[in-house]
Amino acid sequence: MGGLVSTDVAHTVALVDHHCHGVVTAELDRPGLEALISEGGPPSDGETNFDTPIGLAIRRHCAPLLDLPPHAPVDEYLARRAELGTAEVNRRFLSSTNTARYLVDTGHDPAGLTTPEELAAAAGAGAHHVVRLESVAEELAASGVEPAEFARRFAARLADTVAATGAVGVKSVAAYRTGLRLDPARPTAPEVTAAAATWLAAGPGSGWRMAHPDLQRMSMWAAVDLGLPIQFHIGFGDSDIRMAEVDPTLLTDWIRQHRVPVMLLHCWPWHRQASYLACIYPNVHVDVGSVLHYVGPRRAVAVFAESAEVTPFTRLLYSSDAYGVPELYVLGALTFRLALDAMLTDRIAADEWSRPDAERIAAMVAHRNAERVYRLPT
Amino acid sequence: MGGLVSTDVAHTVALVDHHCHGVVTAELDRPGLEALISEGGPPSDGETNFDTPIGLAIRRHCAPLLDLPPHAPVDEYLARRAELGTAEVNRRFLSSTNTARYLVDTGHDPAGLTTPEELAAAAGAGAHHVVRLESVAEELAASGVEPAEFARRFAARLADTVAATGAVGVKSVAAYRTGLRLDPARPTAPEVTAAAATWLAAGPGSGWRMAHPDLQRMSMWAAVDLGLPIQFHIGFGDSDIRMAEVDPTLLTDWIRQHRVPVMLLHCWPWHRQASYLACIYPNVHVDVGSVLHYVGPRRAVAVFAESAEVTPFTRLLYSSDAYGVPELYVLGALTFRLALDAMLTDRIAADEWSRPDAERIAAMVAHRNAERVYRLPT
Amino acid sequence: MGGLVSTDVAHTVALVDHHCHGVVTAELDRPGLEALISEGGPPSDGETNFDTPIGLAIRRHCAPLLDLPPHAPVDEYLARRAELGTAEVNRRFLSSTNTARYLVDTGHDPAGLTTPEELAAAAGAGAHHVVRLESVAEELAASGVEPAEFARRFAARLADTVAATGAVGVKSVAAYRTGLRLDPARPTAPEVTAAAATWLAAGPGSGWRMAHPDLQRMSMWAAVDLGLPIQFHIGFGDSDIRMAEVDPTLLTDWIRQHRVPVMLLHCWPWHRQASYLACIYPNVHVDVGSVLHYVGPRRAVAVFAESAEVTPFTRLLYSSDAYGVPELYVLGALTFRLALDAMLTDRIAADEWSRPDAERIAAMVAHRNAERVYRLPT
Repeated sequence: MGGLVSTDVAHTVALVDHHCHGVVTAELDRPGLEALISEGGPPSDGETNFDTPIGLAIRRHCAPLLDLPPHAPVDEYLARRAELGTAEVNRRFLSSTNTARYLVDTGHDPAGLTTPEELAAAAGAGAHHVVRLESVAEELAASGVEPAEFARRFAARLADTVAATGAVGVKSVAAYRTGLRLDPARPTAPEVTAAAATWLAAGPGSGWRMAHPDLQRMSMWAAVDLGLPIQFHIGFGDSDIRMAEVDPTLLTDWIRQHRVPVMLLHCWPWHRQASYLACIYPNVHVDVGSVLHYVGPRRAVAVFAESAEVTPFTRLLYSSDAYGVPELYVLGALTFRLALDAMLTDRIAADEWSRPDAERIAAMVAHRNAERVYRLPT
Repeated sequence: MGGLVSTDVAHTVALVDHHCHGVVTAELDRPGLEALISEGGPPSDGETNFDTPIGLAIRRHCAPLLDLPPHAPVDEYLARRAELGTAEVNRRFLSSTNTARYLVDTGHDPAGLTTPEELAAAAGAGAHHVVRLESVAEELAASGVEPAEFARRFAARLADTVAATGAVGVKSVAAYRTGLRLDPARPTAPEVTAAAATWLAAGPGSGWRMAHPDLQRMSMWAAVDLGLPIQFHIGFGDSDIRMAEVDPTLLTDWIRQHRVPVMLLHCWPWHRQASYLACIYPNVHVDVGSVLHYVGPRRAVAVFAESAEVTPFTRLLYSSDAYGVPELYVLGALTFRLALDAMLTDRIAADEWSRPDAERIAAMVAHRNAERVYRLPT
Repeated sequence: MGGLVSTDVAHTVALVDHHCHGVVTAELDRPGLEALISEGGPPSDGETNFDTPIGLAIRRHCAPLLDLPPHAPVDEYLARRAELGTAEVNRRFLSSTNTARYLVDTGHDPAGLTTPEELAAAAGAGAHHVVRLESVAEELAASGVEPAEFARRFAARLADTVAATGAVGVKSVAAYRTGLRLDPARPTAPEVTAAAATWLAAGPGSGWRMAHPDLQRMSMWAAVDLGLPIQFHIGFGDSDIRMAEVDPTLLTDWIRQHRVPVMLLHCWPWHRQASYLACIYPNVHVDVGSVLHYVGPRRAVAVFAESAEVTPFTRLLYSSDAYGVPELYVLGALTFRLALDAMLTDRIAADEWSRPDAERIAAMVAHRNAERVYRLPT
């Protein structure tokens, strides 16, 4: 393998990052950076989050972007990062990935993060909004609303937010709030009213955090009515997840009823279950965003290969799921390109795929599928 | 690796395909063929089922059997296929696989498919019947039966069908009908009568589709009484599956009670769970039929290796699970041989297995285990 | 790869085996040995447990320790083993692994097995006790106790046993007794009393086997109060397991409440779920003990790699989980070293990790993490 059969396409093809977040604009000290490079949060006593697959990948692949040698020690990395400053680091890192467009989920703790427009400017790329369903519901709850009006007002506010931002998709974090073992039927008006009444009665004491199954269902059905692609957090995530409850096949009966694109994000360790759904249901799409950079470049090859096992090439996408620090954008793009390249070069070397087919598949997975599903300008 | 250590045994050993279906005898147009090369059915608007791992494998490995170059474009492939005609394509493809015997599940939509005897004639091979439990029950229901007589009449009809066809095994699709989270106890007579009454009362309006847990249990226990190997659909399948309900370890308490051979089919993405059961229970056997051709030759190596992780070599089998189009028989055999060869050559190259052991294992997995378990003539 | 980049560290680093059992001191005949090299117990009619991945690994890697050529036939292996005698075989095998310390679970059928001290003597190593929670409870039940006193007496007896043996950890086999779908809350006194009353009322007829959810919970909480690391059997095991009930993420809500080290053992096929927990919760640690030798050296590389996917290197450990026969200690250490070496050499060859980082990680995983978590003398 290697030079003889390698195609450059995976390393040069433009990417559409169909799910990411903003990047922190403040200066970050070591604890601040460490907390953002692990789904587990700050390191424990006597440990450092750099002693992880992603930590070693940062030292290997991001240090050179700071003019340091690969594998630079953590202290040197942090010192040089501070010296350059967040704005310059963000610019260097974001502009290195050849990402043409970012689809930015603006719903997760956006204070202190770049807006989609600021992210695009730092990266020299395009950006689009993705509206988080729970954020719309929570803003509505905090603004004051009658329970019996909740469903109608939510749908209207969602449509308004989409229109105002030009959003190209919506996002559900039902996985975090209730898990995915949800009744697949549209909730009745009395169900929604009762659930909203319970939540709203708790007032600010609830933290305005929506976590009722009937409200999750209401928000998912409202998204279907809107017709935009719906992203679902699946699998790997932080400590709010109960992993056994976020197997995407728990959504099967819900998915069967719809034609709207369903975008399964992250997915590991349920990525084969996600691949199965994408094989069977034409509206289901899969990525392994965030997982690839957390497992690091070498395991990314294996995880990506598994996620593609029975997934039609028309339903496999790229996302970084990067959040907060620009290292994650660099590694998201890099690990995806390495994993895609490994698949392509293996298939070409084994004469399983022709080179033109391999290049066509690369373009589909890297950007064309996202452009088609989200109806992006090309 | 490669030439120095490779053994030809995986590519030349005769196969017993212990689970497959018949092949369509009519001429197939493009939609007809596309629908049969995906578990998801016809392609969606703007997509083709050839943009999948299996689609590329067909163009690579089946085109040469039509006198075309590898990777021939889909249109050329279809034109040449039509030119040769279904009978000739079936004959060419089926006779290319060095399959000695086919065990044919005659229960899935057999209209328009070859009978086992016709399949054997086209392939130049032997064939045996496998009787689907649900088909026997559904024919009985449609023919008219008293609920209180259902269990007794089912057992008699099953025995008669087995005797009339010389069947060597039976098949349960409980996975499709109710999932595998079934009470492991033998259902009581009142339970069966009540379930049958409910079903039969629905009359033809039920489509005569058996899908009641107590009737599934009754059929599984009747199969045990008969003493033949029982095949179970596990894991990967079409849109009737709820994947979280077809983990084979949900059958653990049922399996523990029996000595009759239990044959776990397909299994992915639960193939490691299947391997575990085969490791622990001497009557449990495993294959990854249909999965190998859907994931394509290169991933077949990985999936097969996982399915064999703790499976005793005496309990690992080959099946194609091919249905409808002869491409699937070609790819079923090819991907199995490639995956088996990858395991053998890796172990020999690493000096983990001696060559005689490797060749003995190849024969067991390719045909001897099936011959022993199903008591086939050798 | 190979010679150019390989580091010897994985093959020479001292091991702390943080979970194993004693070895049989009696002479073993063929049935006796076969029963101990499979989690499925004695072989079935017409089969041998040597026709398995582990069986071939024993012939390959253990035969030379008996002065036989690799791949020696089973009969020759057994004859030579008998000729040397158990004491000499145990000594040869145990002293070959460069294991510095064994942490020995003394709770599983210890009659006829070496004590930790005897194991250490045979191996020329250190040894520590790990106390099985269920054994303490079962001894207490058999000794006579009032239900209302059960919780208090259990805690006292556990503390006494730990003090008397100098135990460095405790072990829960809740996976075998009730599965892990347990109420995460501390059981109330009335719950424990009622559960103990039910069990104790059954008297010796219960076989004194604790298998009540509330008693399992009581024992787990008592262990937390004690503050020692708690080992949990997870995943792969013998026929008492219901695999769908031993996914470690079923413990999520219980784990969240504690800071005491939680040691997830074996884990396959739920090892990615275990890796996720170790990524998120600083007190969770992972190994794939017993699995590596059952899958054999070549698959051990893949399984270990998956278990390390998102596991911080500070939370990944080695154990053999060897039980009964010294072959399992040899293969436990060998497969771990091969799997670790494959990871290190791959990362160095790809220039993903520097050699010093790779060597530091090797030491952490091989012994330093165990030394830190169990507070062992170094």
